[in-house]
Amino acid sequence: MRVALGLEYDGSEFRGWQIQRGARSVQSCVEAALSRVADHGVRVVCAGRTDTGVHALSQVIHFDIEPMRDERAWVFGGNTYLPSDVSILWARQVPDGFHARHSATARVYRYVILNRPARPGLFASRVTWEYRPLCETLMREAACYLLGEHDFSAFRAEGCQAGHAVRTIHRLEVDRDEDRVSIEIEANAFLYHMVRNIAGVLMAIGRGVAAPVWARQVLEARRRAQGGVTAPASGLYLTAVRYPPTRGIPGPGATTFSRSGCAILPG
Amino acid sequence: MRVALGLEYDGSEFRGWQIQRGARSVQSCVEAALSRVADHGVRVVCAGRTDTGVHALSQVIHFDIEPMRDERAWVFGGNTYLPSDVSILWARQVPDGFHARHSATARVYRYVILNRPARPGLFASRVTWEYRPLCETLMREAACYLLGEHDFSAFRAEGCQAGHAVRTIHRLEVDRDEDRVSIEIEANAFLYHMVRNIAGVLMAIGRGVAAPVWARQVLEARRRAQGGVTAPASGLYLTAVRYPPTRGIPGPGATTFSRSGCAILPG
Repeated sequence: MRVALGLEYDGSEFRGWQIQRGARSVQSCVEAALSRVADHGVRVVCAGRTDTGVHALSQVIHFDIEPMRDERAWVFGGNTYLPSDVSILWARQVPDGFHARHSATARVYRYVILNRPARPGLFASRVTWEYRPLCETLMREAACYLLGEHDFSAFRAEGCQAGHAVRTIHRLEVDRDEDRVSIEIEANAFLYHMVRNIAGVLMAIGRGVAAPVWARQVLEARRRAQGGVTAPASGLYLTAVRYPPTRGIPGPGATTFSRSGCAILPG
Repeated sequence: MRVALGLEYDGSEFRGWQIQRGARSVQSCVEAALSRVADHGVRVVCAGRTDTGVHALSQVIHFDIEPMRDERAWVFGGNTYLPSDVSILWARQVPDGFHARHSATARVYRYVILNRPARPGLFASRVTWEYRPLCETLMREAACYLLGEHDFSAFRAEGCQAGHAVRTIHRLEVDRDEDRVSIEIEANAFLYHMVRNIAGVLMAIGRGVAAPVWARQVLEARRRAQGGVTAPASGLYLTAVRYPPTRGIPGPGATTFSRSGCAILPG
């Protein structure tokens, strides 16, 4: 049988998702934990291979297993064997045709910037610090140029293994909450470093280094060299992976108790 | 001259604020960094001595120094010598009569609970995890019994050095944002473990173990043995210290850029 899991992890101490010899990866920790629950070797496939230092609020994976464990066993058993910086949020038995990566219709990433003169003392490896003032209005204006289907070659890092660079950005929002500026971006799929390269361009525009229309000029140039710096990994979170509703995959926040929880408590 | 500083820190890797032989404390890190900036030994006094594992979004300290450095030197110089889990947010020259602890009129703490079946994978040492559903309505009802001036002996841990146990709670709010339940509490001053003992009682009530009126019964018993468990330190944040406005001490968020920052950027 095939099982899908939702995962949350703090990427600070991982050399990314993917197994690499001699490096601590999320995948190797997860496979080790699930193999202990299953009592035999388990290999997993994830929806989006996050980079070194990138966090996930809602990564989705699948794996195949002998029919032997109920859904709770994967969550509670798996979490017993996982280190404190990875947690299994939910588990669902899925049809064999389900594939964590190929069945996904969209991914959502959030980029979190601490925008204040003083560097972070809390959450140092969980935000990107920018000490120069960012104007979110300019960043929002720039974001509009990137919406829709485009060739994102200018935002694609060297080493990207995708066959082509055409992607569709469904949503690209910039918000400020006091000293936190967040960029939320939803697309059908992403190229290597695409979110961090977009964040780099939007941050430069927010600082006033370039006008908002520069985002369109970078996009149209289709050359990475035009796009300036790649923003650091520490502020990046994979926040959701979307599937067709018929797949029955829980959305983000699936482990939250329902409000009706109050009803079961004495008045 | 006397200088006041605002500090932010992640308490996870500290044995609390206060200097202890052989243990990593926030105070020792801060004194070492400021001493390097000043080029001689600096001793500091804080507004609220936080315990092992307790975080601060806005701790306030003061120290005396030869008149020699401007305010920015303390922030930028100090942060150069501090580890990544402590940051100086602001510095102000203050009159000699100012005292970080004695001049404070109130302290605000926030207690953050991750309330969901799965343990945290992100922010593991920065929240308290409760896997059983909490009803925030019941917790809010219980909180009302603790508002105002009372003898808080029942919420005072052994080893508390305060002369008496009468404190005034100005505000005690319980809020839920999806799977985060937060308790925010403002009082003129706090006893040892008082916030964590209040959180322990409110969480038991939120789980339905006792009715909201139990909070009043615990309070009136004035005996610690009645109050149940002390909630873990990991969810606790010192979020603000209040001073009379005439003191000119910046409030929380003082390092945030003003919205008018946009005006200085090209349109």
